[in-house]
Amino acid sequence: MGEFDLIDRFFKRPVTRATLGVGDDCALLMPTPGMQLAVSSDMLVEGRHFLSTVDPARLGHKALAVNLSDLAACGAKPLAFMLALALPRADEAWLEGFSRGLFALADAHGCELIGGDTTQGPLNLCITVLGEVPREQALLRSGARAGDDLYVSGTLGDARLALEVFRGTRALPLAAFEAARARMEQPTPRVALGLALRGVATAAADISDGLVGDLGHILKASGVGACIDSAIAIDLLASKAHVTLASGQFDAEAALEYVLAGGDDYELVFTAPPAARDAVQAAAARAGTPVSRIGRIEAAPGLRLVDAAGQAITRRFASFDHFAG
Amino acid sequence: MGEFDLIDRFFKRPVTRATLGVGDDCALLMPTPGMQLAVSSDMLVEGRHFLSTVDPARLGHKALAVNLSDLAACGAKPLAFMLALALPRADEAWLEGFSRGLFALADAHGCELIGGDTTQGPLNLCITVLGEVPREQALLRSGARAGDDLYVSGTLGDARLALEVFRGTRALPLAAFEAARARMEQPTPRVALGLALRGVATAAADISDGLVGDLGHILKASGVGACIDSAIAIDLLASKAHVTLASGQFDAEAALEYVLAGGDDYELVFTAPPAARDAVQAAAARAGTPVSRIGRIEAAPGLRLVDAAGQAITRRFASFDHFAG
Repeated sequence: MGEFDLIDRFFKRPVTRATLGVGDDCALLMPTPGMQLAVSSDMLVEGRHFLSTVDPARLGHKALAVNLSDLAACGAKPLAFMLALALPRADEAWLEGFSRGLFALADAHGCELIGGDTTQGPLNLCITVLGEVPREQALLRSGARAGDDLYVSGTLGDARLALEVFRGTRALPLAAFEAARARMEQPTPRVALGLALRGVATAAADISDGLVGDLGHILKASGVGACIDSAIAIDLLASKAHVTLASGQFDAEAALEYVLAGGDDYELVFTAPPAARDAVQAAAARAGTPVSRIGRIEAAPGLRLVDAAGQAITRRFASFDHFAG
Repeated sequence: MGEFDLIDRFFKRPVTRATLGVGDDCALLMPTPGMQLAVSSDMLVEGRHFLSTVDPARLGHKALAVNLSDLAACGAKPLAFMLALALPRADEAWLEGFSRGLFALADAHGCELIGGDTTQGPLNLCITVLGEVPREQALLRSGARAGDDLYVSGTLGDARLALEVFRGTRALPLAAFEAARARMEQPTPRVALGLALRGVATAAADISDGLVGDLGHILKASGVGACIDSAIAIDLLASKAHVTLASGQFDAEAALEYVLAGGDDYELVFTAPPAARDAVQAAAARAGTPVSRIGRIEAAPGLRLVDAAGQAITRRFASFDHFAG
């Protein structure tokens, strides 16, 4: 199977939104008048972003999901995407699964594959996604203000817990492992929530490298600090009941680490003024996505963690950095 | 140096055209009203698209050039690009050179880096470029008609000749090698010519995988065939004088192979009706890019090669295919 056969067979579909899709030098797309284009790229490398043993359909899902998550964080509506693939070889079974998982998620979001590139090389998936958002309505990282509430969507830390099982440092009952593994391998991009939060949230980011790290981007861009309630945060770990010490006791230390610095969650962290609490809950209901208020934005720079009694917890969390030593 | 320091230091620059550039979840860009967006992605893999020994500044140039070449083939004006990089390690000298070469070409074309991704992994460069073109004016592969003239820009085959020197199958005098090597490592995207050919050319493609292969895309998409004059084609090899047999005689067979199936040329192949010959030359002059008329489009499918006397030359040329066995 040659490069062009491969593209025809697995990646070429009738064009719907684009004027011109896969198969010319460029794809052509007519933006909606008055809308801003939102663009994001994510590159996934084997062994770094996914295990070599992952089901290719789940990998197809994840490669697009992590990009849609960036659109969600901006409150942008998905339009189209480009797929660049480096493959060690043209493996038909792999391509069938990968393209199936990819298109299932793409179709669910009305996001059309319009072009890309295919080449031979160490497995690498690079997707660039295009979305649109009305002028001045994009959710940015820079809009958080002291006094704002701090929220996250969904659950946090379960992807990291699954990774620890793969690493052999933890064990989970099968059903809990499958649930955590699905979070790691098939994250849910919070596109509907991002759209619903337009005009409600003051700032937003998606959580790909861990809550502490990605919230840190908001704090830096907004010139503020934040305080997180650790008792609420720890409850965000869906598989919490299974994180125990050898003694059988709850391992609060590890659970908090997974929630705050786990990575691969693809939830949204966002801020909104206290006056918007009802509007936030209405947006969450409209999007069918639970959100939790986990703290507040403060004027003093830095991130503080407090216990149920409001006492400061001193701790350092490493956010995921691809080049940290 | 961490991932975000790396981005800040080598890739973050003041935003000019984009509303929001490197450093949020998405880049935001306001398209010009009435223009179509042209989008293309190319992925470059070490050992496949470039040698590991290449000067990083030249590689930065080439990574963007091959993408701008796709915009050129559509007659689109470059606007902005996304850069996704997988690097084995954060090598400052390499990053300094790479970003210098990349931005020199980007600035020459007013094409702004608006976002991307950086990760650890086997060296892989994926660029997605965004351009714009007035509605209905994009140059497509599907517009060639029987009777049209067939043209290519610039010179062909010298990149392949340089590769043969690297492979050790040929030797060149130093000056000729440096010239051929520059063609291989620093191709010139024909953006100005693509813009000048709007409304003049009936079809266009860029030559990345060899003339035969890329012209083949035009023929297939347009449902036509073509005839190429081999005597004119062979003159497109700038380093022709140095392609000799052991006897010292000109190696016409090899020269023709390099021109027709060399690859990595990043010239344009395009078609236009005979009535547009003056308009084609005027466009070429306006763009400062030489063009050569090398044959014509015919109704009968397939590609034919004729000698100076119009006699058919029977030959098969393999176009470059990343998965051909």
